Amino acid sequence: MSAAVSISRMTIIGVGLIGGSLARAVRRNSPAVEIVGCGRHLPNLQRAQELGVIDRHETDPAQAVQGADLVVVAVPVGSIEGVFAAIADNLAPGAVVTDVGSTKGNVVEAARRRLGGRLADFVPGHPIAGTERSGVEASFAELFHGCCVILTPLAETRRPAVERMQALWRLAGARVVEMDVRHHDQVLAATSHLPHLLAYTLVDSLARMDDSEEIFNYAAGGFRDFTRIASSDPALWRDICLANREAMLDMLQRFSGDLAAVTQAVREADGERLVQIFARAKEVRDRFATKGKVRSEE
Amino acid sequence: MSAAVSISRMTIIGVGLIGGSLARAVRRNSPAVEIVGCGRHLPNLQRAQELGVIDRHETDPAQAVQGADLVVVAVPVGSIEGVFAAIADNLAPGAVVTDVGSTKGNVVEAARRRLGGRLADFVPGHPIAGTERSGVEASFAELFHGCCVILTPLAETRRPAVERMQALWRLAGARVVEMDVRHHDQVLAATSHLPHLLAYTLVDSLARMDDSEEIFNYAAGGFRDFTRIASSDPALWRDICLANREAMLDMLQRFSGDLAAVTQAVREADGERLVQIFARAKEVRDRFATKGKVRSEE
Repeated sequence: MSAAVSISRMTIIGVGLIGGSLARAVRRNSPAVEIVGCGRHLPNLQRAQELGVIDRHETDPAQAVQGADLVVVAVPVGSIEGVFAAIADNLAPGAVVTDVGSTKGNVVEAARRRLGGRLADFVPGHPIAGTERSGVEASFAELFHGCCVILTPLAETRRPAVERMQALWRLAGARVVEMDVRHHDQVLAATSHLPHLLAYTLVDSLARMDDSEEIFNYAAGGFRDFTRIASSDPALWRDICLANREAMLDMLQRFSGDLAAVTQAVREADGERLVQIFARAKEVRDRFATKGKVRSEE
Repeated sequence: MSAAVSISRMTIIGVGLIGGSLARAVRRNSPAVEIVGCGRHLPNLQRAQELGVIDRHETDPAQAVQGADLVVVAVPVGSIEGVFAAIADNLAPGAVVTDVGSTKGNVVEAARRRLGGRLADFVPGHPIAGTERSGVEASFAELFHGCCVILTPLAETRRPAVERMQALWRLAGARVVEMDVRHHDQVLAATSHLPHLLAYTLVDSLARMDDSEEIFNYAAGGFRDFTRIASSDPALWRDICLANREAMLDMLQRFSGDLAAVTQAVREADGERLVQIFARAKEVRDRFATKGKVRSEE
């Protein structure tokens, strides 16, 4: 990796599931790279160091990025702007900055406000990987194997910085695509943010029923899979909902309209309409389910 | 099994995932029981016989039930009434009749209309097991291991008939509970029927977007799990929606109201409200996910 991506020191700000897994992947492929971890919770950083995920740690982002060739901002999307503000004046010359946020519009706006003259070195990124678990304990080097990483470079972004990130993610086992910022946020609202909101809403809806304890006793495998993403980190998903509010509201409006139509078909006992919708959904779902297996989604 | 449940001939009408899996479980535990398969599609019956799931087959239900101690009606809920009508006058004295339908109110009504004097021998049942796959090829003897079977006996049902079904399902590896018909339909609307409807609606909603092909390219593990149940049999689920219409509409109204409230919170950027809902859902979901692992759900 040192050869391919020319890194001697990488700083990861936010050593959780994603940051920790990327550190592990780099460590496995390029043991010579020094990995500095940074975060607000000292016990988590100490644990990451015990696990060998990072070489050393700092709690001050401005300190942590000094001398690093690559800075990965892997904090929840609501905290990214503060990190940008803290590091902007302390980045080494030529250092590449990237993030792993699940939304990109708000991150790019934050970068424009906070990274100032270093915008050309910023490569917005989003590995579509994750599990419902969080924290460095849940991290593993293979998390990105076969997953898709979306980069949304700006007009200002230097091409070599993009290529550096492409090389890094490929070494971690991912395939890399580039996409427009706005389009990224629409696509992810559809396939990730809306499903998370639906899963959270359903579980909460049932949990507030009188006989909820009993109800969950009869929930089986299908329900368990359907609601797995409702076990995701609440603060992280609050941030995502707020950060991608416009695209979320578009998708919510679309889905609610479609659900109202399905409800109407049930009310009218319109079996023909129901089977048409179900069959179309099954056909599409069967088709994409057989495509290359990707580990998981954030 | 012969000793425990005193069966010498069992007829399974509808040799699909559920009927086929029950046949396999009985075959494994009691090879002496003769298993007669019945269905409308001859090739499926022939395949079931080739696979050793059944000993012989009939396409006429009235013929198929002759001399059977136990008749399992394992056809989609929309087809159960017709089967009851066809077999009522041909049941052997003392034969127990059961079904495996995912809804019970409509099945009980059909039994009252069609089984006449044999109502005392009817034990409505619902194994909460299944996968999104269907057909005898997908069946396997372990499907019911650790799963829950709900029996909803009527006031008229003979107690020995209920006990016979309890013994049968326990031999297949399931735990058995009894429940009121109406309560069964409410519980299943919440944990199974509504989630299926949401999964179908979401996939169809995305499939009708302009860039749907591209969108599904970026759908990963979380989405795959969330939508797995949208790969279920459309006709089966149409039947279930129609059969359990009242309870479904109650749940749909409840869910839609809650989704509107969540949408409002997103619109108002009310992060506190969102994190409250998400955290409550995560807590409940984490709790039931750690309970005894049940295979899957229909």
